[in-house]
Amino acid sequence: MTRPSEEGLIARYFAPLAGEGGLGLRDDAAVLTPTPDHDLVVTADALVAGIHFFPDDPPGSIARKALAANVSDLAAKGAHPAGFLLTLALPDEWTESWLAEFAQGLGQAARDWRCPLLGGDTVRARGGLTLSITALGEVPRGRMVPRTTARPGDLVCVTGTIGDAALGLALRTRRGDAARDPADRSHVDTAPASAEDDRWVTVLTDRDRQYLLDRYLHPQPRIALAPALREHARAAMDVSDGFAGDLAKMLRVSGATAAIETERVPLSEAARAALDAEPALIERVLTGGDDYEVLCSVAPDHLADLQSKAEQARVPLAVVGQIVKGSGLPVFRQGGVERRFAAGSFSHF
Amino acid sequence: MTRPSEEGLIARYFAPLAGEGGLGLRDDAAVLTPTPDHDLVVTADALVAGIHFFPDDPPGSIARKALAANVSDLAAKGAHPAGFLLTLALPDEWTESWLAEFAQGLGQAARDWRCPLLGGDTVRARGGLTLSITALGEVPRGRMVPRTTARPGDLVCVTGTIGDAALGLALRTRRGDAARDPADRSHVDTAPASAEDDRWVTVLTDRDRQYLLDRYLHPQPRIALAPALREHARAAMDVSDGFAGDLAKMLRVSGATAAIETERVPLSEAARAALDAEPALIERVLTGGDDYEVLCSVAPDHLADLQSKAEQARVPLAVVGQIVKGSGLPVFRQGGVERRFAAGSFSHF
Repeated sequence: MTRPSEEGLIARYFAPLAGEGGLGLRDDAAVLTPTPDHDLVVTADALVAGIHFFPDDPPGSIARKALAANVSDLAAKGAHPAGFLLTLALPDEWTESWLAEFAQGLGQAARDWRCPLLGGDTVRARGGLTLSITALGEVPRGRMVPRTTARPGDLVCVTGTIGDAALGLALRTRRGDAARDPADRSHVDTAPASAEDDRWVTVLTDRDRQYLLDRYLHPQPRIALAPALREHARAAMDVSDGFAGDLAKMLRVSGATAAIETERVPLSEAARAALDAEPALIERVLTGGDDYEVLCSVAPDHLADLQSKAEQARVPLAVVGQIVKGSGLPVFRQGGVERRFAAGSFSHF
Repeated sequence: MTRPSEEGLIARYFAPLAGEGGLGLRDDAAVLTPTPDHDLVVTADALVAGIHFFPDDPPGSIARKALAANVSDLAAKGAHPAGFLLTLALPDEWTESWLAEFAQGLGQAARDWRCPLLGGDTVRARGGLTLSITALGEVPRGRMVPRTTARPGDLVCVTGTIGDAALGLALRTRRGDAARDPADRSHVDTAPASAEDDRWVTVLTDRDRQYLLDRYLHPQPRIALAPALREHARAAMDVSDGFAGDLAKMLRVSGATAAIETERVPLSEAARAALDAEPALIERVLTGGDDYEVLCSVAPDHLADLQSKAEQARVPLAVVGQIVKGSGLPVFRQGGVERRFAAGSFSHF
């Protein structure tokens, strides 16, 4: 089988995605002219087949999700995307059709989020496909929204709905178990399917299931909220490793804790239906990963403005509790019962 | 065995390396305030255990080389380093002592080259250790030195000496073959040891061998030459995949070719001794990878200034030939014989 060289592969599949600064990917480096009076915001995320995604997920979806994870970080910092670099470690069994679909999905995501490809590197993997993306964004000078500055008295807000991706992953794992090649050692980390799963899965409509699977596969970074976060959030981060654990991280670096009303945590109709059938799922909803929503801490006198701008930006935003003095894990209150999630954050490590 | 969480690992080993913009690695992203009237230059390289380095190389050397590969790209573009992001996919068998040495080597390199850690991500690998680094640098606005602009009549110059790392790799492979665990499927791509190797290896002194091994393991990016390149080079790139192949890449994107006097290609004493014993090694010298020197194309009226500034910066610089009209692979002339290196560039892909 004849395959293109690395140079040929870049020219065919990736050069068409390159932004102006990417110089057609024909140089050693990309060049960006920073916007005057702006800071550069930079973030990197790696994704590994069998850990962060299923090797048999659609290639375009894998690409899109890898970029989403990074663009979501930029959005939570109040930054707008300026471009990204991709390093791709490809296992020997890659095919041109796989790569063509991957590049197509990546290009569509780059256009959707106005985040052009600037450069990168393609190498052979030892083991599974490994992707690393570094995304660059810009904020007006001194306006990056930190994670470390939540203050007692602030309200805790979160965008969109929480837990959909964790439930989608549970559905995906069940389906995947049957479909996967038994010789493939890889698996995506998750709790094994159980009797508990069977109860809630059977009550869901096909549409609910599709919705949850899609939320797992196709996160929507909240770019539209970035300007409002810069103006009105005191602290922010993206929720990617589970709501409870990510909130705990923000609190730890801010030197505070929080009280959350569990019933105010926003849920989709599909997640609500699953929880009605199996209330114990709340833990998975609150601690599962891949939400790619924005968690922020907001001073009370900024709340109305933030809510109004979120509405204009068509980003749902819910108040779920308050930052309080103290330390340790945040408390989740529901019907007079208090819970803390010690396992906290979903960890791929 | 108790190991630190990802958060604990970052706090212990990587946070101490973070530059000011890295915010102690406690945030989702790093922030950089661009220097006024400068452009940002961005490059990324991935390195995979068993392909780009030996899994049993000293961890500090692996880290240093990964950063060197990126800083070398910046230097060739005329940029000074501003910082880097690292994503690290660690196989399950990592140990704390390995990671401590890795971080120490990385920190030393970051200080040596004034290129602070800004952020990154740590994940579990499926398969071998995989490192991806994105480095950011700055050049005065509009002054990045392109790869694409070599022009007929320009002189072809190269820094340092060529081929040492390729010979060092050959020595390392011989030594490595005996030392390596036979159950380890990984190997570093190279030509197998042969009778040809035996001849030259036996004539080298211990000091020569140590020098070549060190050149393979510890590249020295030519940061000191960056300002002179900006002033006096028409086109430049770093030589990392082999001199002949990288020159061919520059020529292809510039729409020209070149005539090289093979005897003017600068060699170390050790490489010269090896070549005297085995003249056929010239192909390995000219096509092997990992030189991390700078190749540039210089207009004749800029040559004296470039040479003088290189001397001030203590970077050896040799004129090895000339850019000429035409296309196709550059010709290497030696003693009335012309050769072209069709295999060209060393490819890890």
